[in-house]
Amino acid sequence: MKYCSTCGEQVSQKIPSGDNRLRYVCDSCETIHYQNPRIIAGCIAEHDDKILLCKRAIEPRLGSWTLPAGYMENNETTLQAAARESFEEANANIINMSLYCTYSIRHISQVYMMYRGTLVDGFSAAGEESLETRLYTEQDIPWDELAFPVITETLKLYFTDKRNNNFKLRDGEIYRDESQKIVVKNYPA
Amino acid sequence: MKYCSTCGEQVSQKIPSGDNRLRYVCDSCETIHYQNPRIIAGCIAEHDDKILLCKRAIEPRLGSWTLPAGYMENNETTLQAAARESFEEANANIINMSLYCTYSIRHISQVYMMYRGTLVDGFSAAGEESLETRLYTEQDIPWDELAFPVITETLKLYFTDKRNNNFKLRDGEIYRDESQKIVVKNYPA
Repeated sequence: MKYCSTCGEQVSQKIPSGDNRLRYVCDSCETIHYQNPRIIAGCIAEHDDKILLCKRAIEPRLGSWTLPAGYMENNETTLQAAARESFEEANANIINMSLYCTYSIRHISQVYMMYRGTLVDGFSAAGEESLETRLYTEQDIPWDELAFPVITETLKLYFTDKRNNNFKLRDGEIYRDESQKIVVKNYPA
Repeated sequence: MKYCSTCGEQVSQKIPSGDNRLRYVCDSCETIHYQNPRIIAGCIAEHDDKILLCKRAIEPRLGSWTLPAGYMENNETTLQAAARESFEEANANIINMSLYCTYSIRHISQVYMMYRGTLVDGFSAAGEESLETRLYTEQDIPWDELAFPVITETLKLYFTDKRNNNFKLRDGEIYRDESQKIVVKNYPA
């Protein structure tokens, strides 16, 4: 951020009075421009003993497999965002949705909120951001071709809870340590 | 938003190619400026059969009672944000925190993520944004002086689940209907 979106003049990084963090503050009109994490909402869509994955048609990780998910928009709920993304990416209608897991990904300031639900008629088809959609059993999941660590972790939790027939809400965090290695912490359920 | 934060030129509302929503797009450098919901993280801090409330020292709703909560910052987790806000607003240290409920508040594009935890030593004291802090039993909660509908709903759920000794994650939404009346939907637990 270099310029104020309110008046167009330059911004500087300052700690505003009463605050304790550097913020972008306009040198002219003094508007404080806060920056906050974004929510990514998505879904594990179930059909029989399978779940839906999408092959990404866009960067990053073009060609890898992912759960349908994307940025939550203003004026919607997390549930609506998860349903919308599933429809946009996979033409998938999902019912009986309930929140299943959340992950805070600190180093990129994202919070994933993943729902679980039933894929209507087991039907899906690639949307604009997908090359292909497919239903996978646990045995067939392409673990080495998953798009992001958060997708791998969500699926690992899911299949563990499914085996135990005990779906509790899961909360956790993912970050890079000093050596840039990805670290996953699943909080106690 | 009137000006581009990247180059300082004017922005217009357009639907970018491949998108289906109006976005602020720079007339000059074509940067797309997405706007997304913000997360507010907070905590129900328990001590014996009481919970902690803070009397607001700031607008909106100065003088009303609320749970410690505030905007999540970049590069932190939702749990860290809830703990930080509890410390900033009430000098409260909270342990054994677990995610308890989330509410999407559509009309103001906020997502609340509320934790539940144990208030260390039962100690609290007003931080800069609070006039006063106090521990309340269910019978003493000042229901008519609570700051926001989401706080009232969170506490109603909490005391119901506490009576049943069955804390399940709760997810729901709050919005204004056409007559501007606040509507609350708690999804099935």
